[in-house]
Amino acid sequence: MKPGHGGNRFNQKIIYDFSANINPLGMPEACCAALQAGIKEVEQYPDFYGGKLRRAIGKAEGVRPEQVILGNGASELIYALCYALRPKRVLLSVPAFSEYEAAAAAAGGKVCYWKLREETNFSLSSEIIGQLAGTELMFLGNPGNPTGALTKPELLSEIAKRCEQTGTVLCVDECFLPFLEKEEQLTLKHRIREFPHLFILRAFTKIYGMPGLRLGYGLTANEELAGKMRDCLPPWNTSVPAQNAGLAALTDGDFLERTRRLIRQERDYLLEEMSGGLADKIYHPEANFIFFKARTDLYDRLLEQGILIRACGDYPGLEPGYFRIAVRGHEENAALIEAWKKL
Amino acid sequence: MKPGHGGNRFNQKIIYDFSANINPLGMPEACCAALQAGIKEVEQYPDFYGGKLRRAIGKAEGVRPEQVILGNGASELIYALCYALRPKRVLLSVPAFSEYEAAAAAAGGKVCYWKLREETNFSLSSEIIGQLAGTELMFLGNPGNPTGALTKPELLSEIAKRCEQTGTVLCVDECFLPFLEKEEQLTLKHRIREFPHLFILRAFTKIYGMPGLRLGYGLTANEELAGKMRDCLPPWNTSVPAQNAGLAALTDGDFLERTRRLIRQERDYLLEEMSGGLADKIYHPEANFIFFKARTDLYDRLLEQGILIRACGDYPGLEPGYFRIAVRGHEENAALIEAWKKL
Repeated sequence: MKPGHGGNRFNQKIIYDFSANINPLGMPEACCAALQAGIKEVEQYPDFYGGKLRRAIGKAEGVRPEQVILGNGASELIYALCYALRPKRVLLSVPAFSEYEAAAAAAGGKVCYWKLREETNFSLSSEIIGQLAGTELMFLGNPGNPTGALTKPELLSEIAKRCEQTGTVLCVDECFLPFLEKEEQLTLKHRIREFPHLFILRAFTKIYGMPGLRLGYGLTANEELAGKMRDCLPPWNTSVPAQNAGLAALTDGDFLERTRRLIRQERDYLLEEMSGGLADKIYHPEANFIFFKARTDLYDRLLEQGILIRACGDYPGLEPGYFRIAVRGHEENAALIEAWKKL
Repeated sequence: MKPGHGGNRFNQKIIYDFSANINPLGMPEACCAALQAGIKEVEQYPDFYGGKLRRAIGKAEGVRPEQVILGNGASELIYALCYALRPKRVLLSVPAFSEYEAAAAAAGGKVCYWKLREETNFSLSSEIIGQLAGTELMFLGNPGNPTGALTKPELLSEIAKRCEQTGTVLCVDECFLPFLEKEEQLTLKHRIREFPHLFILRAFTKIYGMPGLRLGYGLTANEELAGKMRDCLPPWNTSVPAQNAGLAALTDGDFLERTRRLIRQERDYLLEEMSGGLADKIYHPEANFIFFKARTDLYDRLLEQGILIRACGDYPGLEPGYFRIAVRGHEENAALIEAWKKL
């Protein structure tokens, strides 16, 4: 069985779900309209090459369409990367998203853990660079998940440079980066030509609030890697609804700005409340989710009240007492705080 | 680049598409309603385990829910099977669906071709049984694609028995079988417990006319194989729309019957017309598509009139002059015949 994930609401009575880090605004309006209009289109195969969507993503991200690889969710691309490279050694700083490890194992790779320490707030340091020799693939979440830790552009640059020397494909998972107002300063997406071993992972899932549609993408200037990945992906891997909603999402001009404003406001609200004795320690509150330490029974006690948060004790390198909550809309956040205060 | 497929209408002016073997009735009505009702549901993750849908499929197919594996189209399961088994030797009777070979290659396997001969109308014979030793995986389409050839239950049984001895996983691709009135006599799905190495591949794509949604499934009683495959599949691989439409499709009680009646009538119509000098030879006209030999310029000449058929010259073991057409609704079939007669 796969390891735990957020968002598993099924077979549970959940009123508020803070376990999955999805945009509290939901999908852009234009996506609903596109899904509505496209219902009969599912009677035909999706565009095999996803040409229109890749062109639109390329335009939005400032890369060429042929540098875009579409996936049935970002998670499919994590697996495709592993199948394409069949790496013997995969480097992973932990705690991290559980699918990196699962995908590496599925492709027969050995995962080498680089344990981030609580003493340094689970931040990555340049020490990791010494671990790259002999590594075919490294995953790096920016921000990290579940920690929310951001890696500075200078350190990222250093790592990417070293990866070019060691022949390590560096997968920087930027799925949560678009929630941040300083995305442009933090992304490596403009540097894919400079670093041929760089693979940027992104998703519509989270930022455009459509996890049920499964749509992610990768950016790379490495034609050989892209070709190998396409060979490892099943044909028609992104559905008609996913392609249509993805295209529509990119037409909503101020959606990102509205999202970032809401996230900042609501994160500030949660942090203020949580700092007043609810959480024992809060780490890196810069993303659209908050990683913290608190009473070990918090998950169970909130669940009794229909509030689902992410207990992080099952992540490698963590223990019971670590939790992650998504930043939601104000009504939901207030309900969480109110319930938490009553415990 | 992936090999050719039917259904690639993009960047072409196509009025009638006979290249993809999809149900001419389209989706059941209930699917449209389910897609409509489920639009806002895509703002949440799909059910990780697809529990409701697997129970419904299990009920419809007469197997247990835990014997059902869901895929993002049947094609994803072909890849997952290869990644799970990492077979050194994959046996393939050709011509066959191109993705078997592509998936085997993606997983690093060597494909051994068993060439079906024109002299025996591309039918499988018991000779194949001698090829199974040392083979970890064999794909067998029933009916075969593009040939439409059916393999008799007695021969299938013999092959399945030998596969138990040789330790060969036998993937019987029954994606087109539900179009046949004698499905129940031909399927091996009721025998998965008898043959633990048997894996039955099925899809909603074709029979329920929803290729744009990507929904396939496998049936096996082999828990170890199923577990390995799940480990090789990305999480949430089937989307909310796919799960919802799949569930709805199974509620339409007489859809299969209406489909089979239409296919039989229209296949008879096409065969009668094609036998009158249009086709040079027609093979096994029992499925929802027709494989035949005709003038080598047929594809190009029909395309000039906006009619897309499947030219089969790019299949291993075939040459220019072989074609496949889907059985469509009467208006479309009549338009094809009329255009063809004028050539």
